[in-house]
Amino acid sequence: MPDVFPSRGEGGAALFLPSAPQAQFDWRDPLQLERLLTEEEVMIRDSFRTYCQEQLMPRILLANRNEVFHREIVSEMGQLGVLGSTIKGYGCAGTSYVAYGLLAREVERVDSSYRSVMSVQSSLVMHPINAYGTEAQKQRYLPRLARGELLGCFGLTEPNHGSDPGSMEARARYNPSSKTYTLNGTKTWGLGARTPGFSGREVRASGVGRGGEKGGSQDSWVLFAVGQKGPFGCLNNARYGIAWGALGAAQFCLETARQYTLDRIQFGVPLARNQLVQKKLADMLTEITIGIQACLQLGRLKDEDRATPEMISMLKRNSCGKALEIARQARDMLGGNGIADEYHVIRHVMNLEAVNTYEGTHDIHALILGRAITGLQSFTVNK
Amino acid sequence: MPDVFPSRGEGGAALFLPSAPQAQFDWRDPLQLERLLTEEEVMIRDSFRTYCQEQLMPRILLANRNEVFHREIVSEMGQLGVLGSTIKGYGCAGTSYVAYGLLAREVERVDSSYRSVMSVQSSLVMHPINAYGTEAQKQRYLPRLARGELLGCFGLTEPNHGSDPGSMEARARYNPSSKTYTLNGTKTWGLGARTPGFSGREVRASGVGRGGEKGGSQDSWVLFAVGQKGPFGCLNNARYGIAWGALGAAQFCLETARQYTLDRIQFGVPLARNQLVQKKLADMLTEITIGIQACLQLGRLKDEDRATPEMISMLKRNSCGKALEIARQARDMLGGNGIADEYHVIRHVMNLEAVNTYEGTHDIHALILGRAITGLQSFTVNK
Amino acid sequence: MPDVFPSRGEGGAALFLPSAPQAQFDWRDPLQLERLLTEEEVMIRDSFRTYCQEQLMPRILLANRNEVFHREIVSEMGQLGVLGSTIKGYGCAGTSYVAYGLLAREVERVDSSYRSVMSVQSSLVMHPINAYGTEAQKQRYLPRLARGELLGCFGLTEPNHGSDPGSMEARARYNPSSKTYTLNGTKTWGLGARTPGFSGREVRASGVGRGGEKGGSQDSWVLFAVGQKGPFGCLNNARYGIAWGALGAAQFCLETARQYTLDRIQFGVPLARNQLVQKKLADMLTEITIGIQACLQLGRLKDEDRATPEMISMLKRNSCGKALEIARQARDMLGGNGIADEYHVIRHVMNLEAVNTYEGTHDIHALILGRAITGLQSFTVNK
Amino acid sequence: MPDVFPSRGEGGAALFLPSAPQAQFDWRDPLQLERLLTEEEVMIRDSFRTYCQEQLMPRILLANRNEVFHREIVSEMGQLGVLGSTIKGYGCAGTSYVAYGLLAREVERVDSSYRSVMSVQSSLVMHPINAYGTEAQKQRYLPRLARGELLGCFGLTEPNHGSDPGSMEARARYNPSSKTYTLNGTKTWGLGARTPGFSGREVRASGVGRGGEKGGSQDSWVLFAVGQKGPFGCLNNARYGIAWGALGAAQFCLETARQYTLDRIQFGVPLARNQLVQKKLADMLTEITIGIQACLQLGRLKDEDRATPEMISMLKRNSCGKALEIARQARDMLGGNGIADEYHVIRHVMNLEAVNTYEGTHDIHALILGRAITGLQSFTVNK
Repeated sequence: MPDVFPSRGEGGAALFLPSAPQAQFDWRDPLQLERLLTEEEVMIRDSFRTYCQEQLMPRILLANRNEVFHREIVSEMGQLGVLGSTIKGYGCAGTSYVAYGLLAREVERVDSSYRSVMSVQSSLVMHPINAYGTEAQKQRYLPRLARGELLGCFGLTEPNHGSDPGSMEARARYNPSSKTYTLNGTKTWGLGARTPGFSGREVRASGVGRGGEKGGSQDSWVLFAVGQKGPFGCLNNARYGIAWGALGAAQFCLETARQYTLDRIQFGVPLARNQLVQKKLADMLTEITIGIQACLQLGRLKDEDRATPEMISMLKRNSCGKALEIARQARDMLGGNGIADEYHVIRHVMNLEAVNTYEGTHDIHALILGRAITGLQSFTVNK
Repeated sequence: MPDVFPSRGEGGAALFLPSAPQAQFDWRDPLQLERLLTEEEVMIRDSFRTYCQEQLMPRILLANRNEVFHREIVSEMGQLGVLGSTIKGYGCAGTSYVAYGLLAREVERVDSSYRSVMSVQSSLVMHPINAYGTEAQKQRYLPRLARGELLGCFGLTEPNHGSDPGSMEARARYNPSSKTYTLNGTKTWGLGARTPGFSGREVRASGVGRGGEKGGSQDSWVLFAVGQKGPFGCLNNARYGIAWGALGAAQFCLETARQYTLDRIQFGVPLARNQLVQKKLADMLTEITIGIQACLQLGRLKDEDRATPEMISMLKRNSCGKALEIARQARDMLGGNGIADEYHVIRHVMNLEAVNTYEGTHDIHALILGRAITGLQSFTVNK
Repeated sequence: MPDVFPSRGEGGAALFLPSAPQAQFDWRDPLQLERLLTEEEVMIRDSFRTYCQEQLMPRILLANRNEVFHREIVSEMGQLGVLGSTIKGYGCAGTSYVAYGLLAREVERVDSSYRSVMSVQSSLVMHPINAYGTEAQKQRYLPRLARGELLGCFGLTEPNHGSDPGSMEARARYNPSSKTYTLNGTKTWGLGARTPGFSGREVRASGVGRGGEKGGSQDSWVLFAVGQKGPFGCLNNARYGIAWGALGAAQFCLETARQYTLDRIQFGVPLARNQLVQKKLADMLTEITIGIQACLQLGRLKDEDRATPEMISMLKRNSCGKALEIARQARDMLGGNGIADEYHVIRHVMNLEAVNTYEGTHDIHALILGRAITGLQSFTVNK
Repeated sequence: MPDVFPSRGEGGAALFLPSAPQAQFDWRDPLQLERLLTEEEVMIRDSFRTYCQEQLMPRILLANRNEVFHREIVSEMGQLGVLGSTIKGYGCAGTSYVAYGLLAREVERVDSSYRSVMSVQSSLVMHPINAYGTEAQKQRYLPRLARGELLGCFGLTEPNHGSDPGSMEARARYNPSSKTYTLNGTKTWGLGARTPGFSGREVRASGVGRGGEKGGSQDSWVLFAVGQKGPFGCLNNARYGIAWGALGAAQFCLETARQYTLDRIQFGVPLARNQLVQKKLADMLTEITIGIQACLQLGRLKDEDRATPEMISMLKRNSCGKALEIARQARDMLGGNGIADEYHVIRHVMNLEAVNTYEGTHDIHALILGRAITGLQSFTVNK
């Protein structure tokens, strides 16, 4: 008797063992990112998620519609320890960069503007003080910034220089008599003073500021200038947070599109029953899943001090470009309701248009990568 | 004295510390996948890479042009221990699934047909025997298959059923008198007998085969039939290898396009100096990098028995779709030479057209994912 | 002497005649659409263009920002003869459908909402009265609608039925005693009452209206109900106008992106000097150019009563999808200013998101075309 | 009695007139291009279509598989009057450029290589003789070329210069003693000697030729050299034909994909019943339809001597890029059979890869257009 079909007589018979209790696919975490996080990271993330969903989500609709920013949110974030969270000491939490990425993702799930506040304060204000400041400066400012008592801002872009910071014109001059610095120049897009929702009314802070401290009052400001290389260090940190955050916004859009198309009946079945809808959901899920895995690896490298600016360019660009595309698809899937702000998706579309542009446009990061790959720069017309 | 610009007199002065000895960006491994592999995995991969580059690469051009398959390659692979490498015992290497993925990537860097040979033997022939066979069968066949003495093949697709294996019509019937089985039906695309290069002359093995053993001669064959669920288990294994392998082909295309555009001078500068070229390279590199990170995570889950078919669908689809797009871009970047087979890229384009289709088309995997996301099937017209 | 190089001694010498006074390429009209229009069509278009640029353009920024609609615009349009312009008699202009398309293009260059007002009044209000009304109705309403004294609206979509008008639930019932009709049901997206800019605050006109006339006062309304097939006739007319109009919005975005990138200097040259920018401009120009040629042919067919709904589906879908993509590209090219409303591009992006969705989404029109191509419907799960 | 629902009592009643005998949508000619052609153009096209389908189609499969070119096809084309058809006199047909475009479309429906033969002979060989030759040259060569007795070829590209003809190095030098010219240099991609199917074995005619006539024998050749501007005139003519031809190939792919998906049953219904399939068909049909309308307008402009090189760049680029994408989609829709050459689609994919590259790549034409739009060149690194 041939052993190829042992002891079964029927033609074409099945010959398989029952499969072992199978792992389950979870569309909310298709490649089980969760298993790669430390207990502490999960804990930090979960408590912040609760805050974001319970405290921020209910406020965002009107904040965006009315273009207001609730200053107290900075203090709340301070209380939760998420400002400058990767800094060791000075009242900061000292988390891993992965934890910081997870926080960015949670908060941008609600709105990019909240992540932006967190990013600016953490990466563009606290990070340079921590990296380039004196010990006295650190002790004076970092704890208050960490608590959200002080709110920082950052001015890089100038009206005539977008992707070309090396040409910036603003200059600080020291006045020996007053022992202060005067800042001359014009800054656009002063990040930090941005209202939620990036509503199209951009902030034009064409300020001539004076250096030096004026005490703790709300409108005093203290200037920290860093030279040509300084901004890039700051931007790297901020871009890292954006890479995570943008995928949080994308995740919200995916979940909303999924639920909407499950709930809405057309021609007798849920919209989600349509192939054209399912293909979009599959594309969205795939990009989010592979994008976030890459962010995690980048975070681990950052924690080991092995991350390079090009890696960050790659993932800032990838996350933003893909998230924008996902948000647009979600908007489309919601039909007419996709432009109604109570469904939140159009707000994410608008935010991501901005996020895809600031901190290095999609194309500028392509050229940064291109230079890293080829050794040839193609930014300028010079050989 | 204000502490914002400590002890520097010049306006707009730089105020940054020299950065720590920085990590370097390596465009060949942008997110340092290497650091996530075990020493054994690296070793296995490197020795197989040497074989692939030194032994296979020189043969592929003519093999493809003349549509021949060198049978001895199977034996060589057997000697190297890469056939059925994840199986424990029976003369198999017992590697991790990550190692298997790395092997698939190396071999498909040369040609998809070689990876296909390895996949079919490992996943579609040895895996089902190992998973569903009797102990006697395992002992009889696995060692010889592992050594490449026996060459297996696999027939699923039928002329009238592509993405719909549930409807397959071929049936094996047992003949008690001869103690053999007769296979009735028609099979297309008998994987395993495929010539390298998938050259457009498909193999139509419309066979009526006889079960049972006829000894060790080259043309005897032994039938293992598995029921409705069996094929899916096999396919999962094969698709997992494809997910890795396709990105190997993409990597080759990226490296070739990079070198070609660096070497070729147009309008006085290398082609690679052009923004349009650099953007393509940046896109290619990004997709390969994030895709392979995801494959690694899938491999780790597979090694822990936590991988699900949907995960594999996601990455088979992503890798193949992206690799095909990358190969097309590379072909375009090589201009007229992109269609000359000595540059190898057009061969990869053609291969990936097939790879993107077999083992579940891009669209079918979208619908598999769509069902996993929504809980609703949209394959058929039934509710 | 060889005649191949007659009477020229130099090697490699040029041998060409001076080319005839060459036609010039005009990027504003690459395929010279202009030459295909009648004198009357050009005249109608030009005078309306003047109005749109001089009268509408200065008002749109604040109208959109403050979400107001200037009712007098309807009267102005009436005076210009652009409402119901294709209707013969009843105080209407009796233009060709091509002229109507040109008008739609001019007005949507400024804002989709103005085209929408014109479309609704012309195609969804005046057209059905002209097509399905009694002579008395035509005489009573058309002249006043043409003058913009009366402002019509149209309610098709219901909360539970977007792309599926056949299932609409609202019903009009006749009350013999009062000789009136009562409309029961809920309508969403009552086109006509839409504010400019589709700002995300959608109009929910959940009205229970009463048929019959109440005189000429502003808030009275007169119901015209048309059966199952009626709406499609109306929609065809409206969609035809959208096909032209969306490309007008796209044209504005192209022109703005071109000028912006010419004006803005980065790394010492205009942004427009970059290959990545030029490729985008080339793509945008190509799609606009070929799209509008197709619209013209559709218009000519419509004027000969040879246009079919499928043709209109094709071009509504093509124009909207391409225009949206063009507007997004333009927004990206303006960098941070792309989200500032004084550059107008973000407004067009938002408008086109809506325009791409209403009057049949991109996907629904794909399925309409798919059915026309294959003879098989795939809207529903039924065979 | 209210006049809104005249004489119908039922609620929600239909109120529409029977529509006039409606025009029919014909997916083979969605915007009725047919109606825009002259009787003569239709006649010329139809008789050539018959030849192409009956005489060429049966030969192409084996010609491509075996990489042979049937020289007699040139004579057959000559007999049909399609070589140099737009030339007036000298035994040429003197058709319109639109007719020439229609011929290109018909022949490329079968295979790009046949259109290429026709293009090279007509645009790159006969056109320059007609435009730049002496009367004696015209009389000597044009009639024989028109009859297909002589077969011309064209050598522009050199190994080191692809998209940069201005730098070509080959030079003809006159030898007064022998009254001949000697050509020094190396040419790649000698169009004209191309085998059907562009099979990846490119023709490397690194010839050192001698000018002058050697009589009428098959292997003699006569050199016509034209200066720097000459080639562009030739190329414009050839590119014009490609713009039409590529859409012919696309049309074949659409028709094949449509029929294949109608014939093949999966999960109980034709593949064409799937939304994902229908969307692809809709996209394909739309691009072909709008692309061909634009070609027609270009042809009309050419006939009026109003076409510019930029217009031709635009449509060569658009037709080739879109046709390639359409062919790839068709290949995908045929599943495994998409790579089997008896379905013809993979051959078109391969051809179109070449067609998209030669006579100006997709990117080069983008930069030509970009320069026309912005007035700034971005080909080179010079300002």
